[in-house]
Amino acid sequence: MSEVADTYEQFLDHVRQLSYVGDAGGLLRWDQQVMMPDGGTPARTKQQSALSTLQHDLLTDDELAGYLDDLEEASLDPDQQAVVREVRREHERARKVPRDLVERISEATSEALPVWEQAREEDDFETYAPVLEELVELRREYAEAIDPDRDPYEVLFEEFEPYLGLDTAERVLERLRDELVPLIDDIASSDVTQPRPFEGTYDVEAQEALVRDALDVVGFDWDRGRLDTSAHPFTSGTQFDARITTRFDPEKPLDSLSSTIHEFGHASYALGLPDDEYGTPLGEARDLTVHESQSRLWENHVARSQPFWEHILPTVEEYLGVEASPADAYGAANRVYDDNLIRVEADELTYHMHIVLRFEIERDLISGDLDVQDVPQVWNDKMEEYLGIRPETDAEGCLQDIHWTNGTFGYFPTYSLGSVLAAQLYDAADEAIGPIEADIREGEFDALYDWMTENVHSHGKRYRTGDLVEEATGEPYNADHFIDYVTEKYGALYDL
Amino acid sequence: MSEVADTYEQFLDHVRQLSYVGDAGGLLRWDQQVMMPDGGTPARTKQQSALSTLQHDLLTDDELAGYLDDLEEASLDPDQQAVVREVRREHERARKVPRDLVERISEATSEALPVWEQAREEDDFETYAPVLEELVELRREYAEAIDPDRDPYEVLFEEFEPYLGLDTAERVLERLRDELVPLIDDIASSDVTQPRPFEGTYDVEAQEALVRDALDVVGFDWDRGRLDTSAHPFTSGTQFDARITTRFDPEKPLDSLSSTIHEFGHASYALGLPDDEYGTPLGEARDLTVHESQSRLWENHVARSQPFWEHILPTVEEYLGVEASPADAYGAANRVYDDNLIRVEADELTYHMHIVLRFEIERDLISGDLDVQDVPQVWNDKMEEYLGIRPETDAEGCLQDIHWTNGTFGYFPTYSLGSVLAAQLYDAADEAIGPIEADIREGEFDALYDWMTENVHSHGKRYRTGDLVEEATGEPYNADHFIDYVTEKYGALYDL
Repeated sequence: MSEVADTYEQFLDHVRQLSYVGDAGGLLRWDQQVMMPDGGTPARTKQQSALSTLQHDLLTDDELAGYLDDLEEASLDPDQQAVVREVRREHERARKVPRDLVERISEATSEALPVWEQAREEDDFETYAPVLEELVELRREYAEAIDPDRDPYEVLFEEFEPYLGLDTAERVLERLRDELVPLIDDIASSDVTQPRPFEGTYDVEAQEALVRDALDVVGFDWDRGRLDTSAHPFTSGTQFDARITTRFDPEKPLDSLSSTIHEFGHASYALGLPDDEYGTPLGEARDLTVHESQSRLWENHVARSQPFWEHILPTVEEYLGVEASPADAYGAANRVYDDNLIRVEADELTYHMHIVLRFEIERDLISGDLDVQDVPQVWNDKMEEYLGIRPETDAEGCLQDIHWTNGTFGYFPTYSLGSVLAAQLYDAADEAIGPIEADIREGEFDALYDWMTENVHSHGKRYRTGDLVEEATGEPYNADHFIDYVTEKYGALYDL
Repeated sequence: MSEVADTYEQFLDHVRQLSYVGDAGGLLRWDQQVMMPDGGTPARTKQQSALSTLQHDLLTDDELAGYLDDLEEASLDPDQQAVVREVRREHERARKVPRDLVERISEATSEALPVWEQAREEDDFETYAPVLEELVELRREYAEAIDPDRDPYEVLFEEFEPYLGLDTAERVLERLRDELVPLIDDIASSDVTQPRPFEGTYDVEAQEALVRDALDVVGFDWDRGRLDTSAHPFTSGTQFDARITTRFDPEKPLDSLSSTIHEFGHASYALGLPDDEYGTPLGEARDLTVHESQSRLWENHVARSQPFWEHILPTVEEYLGVEASPADAYGAANRVYDDNLIRVEADELTYHMHIVLRFEIERDLISGDLDVQDVPQVWNDKMEEYLGIRPETDAEGCLQDIHWTNGTFGYFPTYSLGSVLAAQLYDAADEAIGPIEADIREGEFDALYDWMTENVHSHGKRYRTGDLVEEATGEPYNADHFIDYVTEKYGALYDL
């Protein structure tokens, strides 16, 4: 082996170790949310912290720094260059943040959780305010440690979407606001109301059997995955073992169905990553925008489409014991709520106004243009402006999400950026292998699944986000497809 | 803080990290056997190997060596001395074994597993023989690396029981052979046969409900534990989260019951370890003899006792839908099989002859007094000598256990050493808080549980095994209690 090849192999071994420890930590978190008895918390916290420390040491140590320096001087093929680029990025960010600050953030978020839980329960923003203040301050410090010369919110945003650029995110979110607010207004004034054939109470076991059948229908690989229940649905795992969770509300059978298919989309991304690159950036997902594009594509473009309802309806009717026409079921699955205050319960359209609102608030919080104490007022004003409804409590307003309490700022935009990308990818796939609707009507999902694997999943982190999108769709990342999609879909549904 | 106190705290932090990583690895193994989809194996193997490497590095590194050297010069209290003693022991053993040898053993056992599985399925010892030969050779090399001047089998045995001494094990196993062979003979010639009121086929769900109820009865803390199913029952976890597995055979409802209570005993040990010593040797179980004493105590002394059957019978009858007298149920739970070739299906009495046989064979394999190719012959001869039956196939003979294929030699004796200790501990507890039988009849297990926690569990690894036994029972470790117990119990059952 040449000297460079030898160094690259040693470097890759180091990177793989780091990644394996990370995945072990992922299993500990999955277990904590799905399997662990309550009493296990103190031990689990310590186990996770030990793995985080080891992971941080492996990511920041001088050995890795040496490999990176050597390899950046060397002549590498494009895949190797991509691996070095991605590891360098993570390495630099981690090295710049003092360990003391990492620990203070970890402690602050641990302490914040029960305060937030109680504040939300008691609708008491005052108690929560100093906690939020501290978290904002700590994250500003964090961003400054990584790059003191840039907008701290931009630095934070890049933790979740490293390459698309905050300017792109701002442009897209502004466009969503400008186009969706009038569309939502039109829907609110429309004479059409969507039917509600699935009102009532449904057995949780029947719902579970239904979503398992639905996962069979879309092609979930049970040899490489599981479905369980947890308080908040999520997906976790690797290309060898991708695990979905869901939850069941007796009165909302469509929620568990769409949430399960959403998580299936995330799992499809994990399972489509190349097996032989497991442990390297080429075997890892390209961050949150692309991840969310996969979940939204399956949740909305597939499982909220008319042909899907034509295909799945007999199964739904069988398990839930109700009858509906495909058109009614499709309408019910796409009803736009005029009174929903809660992001995670929002429909496909108003959802984005929840995101725009959070984005605008967290950006101004981090920049200092907005004081923590003014958050409830601004939140409620924006809800009124964007959705025509005003929360009566902060519990249903600015206290509803866990993200800030987790110390997470800059994450929210990726939900909308992913939806936007889903529409662009769907159209590109439709061009290549369509009409996809005909396949969906037949319950044939292989071609769509395979196209996504070939054009998105199989690349791992080979390309930066924008390049991946261009490679896959032939055009730069843009919101046109999404705007066209919702305009056409909701225009038809609401006679606009 | 004094300098010594400071060093001790840093040392303890290091030890805790090591322990937390070990427990994370334990969860990965639990998940693999209980939850993981089959496809997850390649990734899990790599994750586990990464954690093992990190654990080995933490155990053998110079930082820990430095702490140990400093602390052995310092003036420490007895608990601190115990912690240093235990960590020193592990550190020395791990440092003496070359990493290359550890990897060769790991590879050889991975490769051995499918060979053994196929050999067992096809009753083909010839194919398995070279694999066993290599494993024996590697373990000899391993023992020699740790201590070239001592009997290699003794060195291997100390991996599982570090302090009781191989001479004690040999003496106890010889005594078991000498006393149990005639007792088993007497039972075989007795006119008494035990009734079989639970012959038939029983719903697995009913069996699961029964064992969950039984765990409630003995006081399993569901806030700090779980029950699941796996191919081979085992217990895993910590004082905060101890997990039991069991398995169900429709035709053997008593097996799942006694196996679950056996694992409950293991879990009771884990759960009885002190919370505030989690991560240090004072918060860890005192190896396999003591662990097995707890499982055997609950399995045999409690759940195979007459008063237990008086208490549990209505529950058993309810779930299984059969009726029996307490005496018949007790008899059935203690039937001595005259035709059983399989260790894991053996009764309380013949079980030990299966162990004696394996002990004698593996000791001679390691010493070189027995050639691998002669194992089937010797196995079958000993089965005939000790139990009066001869396997017709090696699948039912020397190929039945996974231990050697796992590269494990010296483990088997701890099964019997633990049973012997169970009887000694039961008598000591009975002296202190008895009559325990009266409690059992009432379904009251707290006093027994608490006595074990106070006298055994709460000490962790504070005392060497023999000292722990003396502290708890007031006398040295010995087999008298066990011999008395089985002589009396089976004398009564079989009219001897």
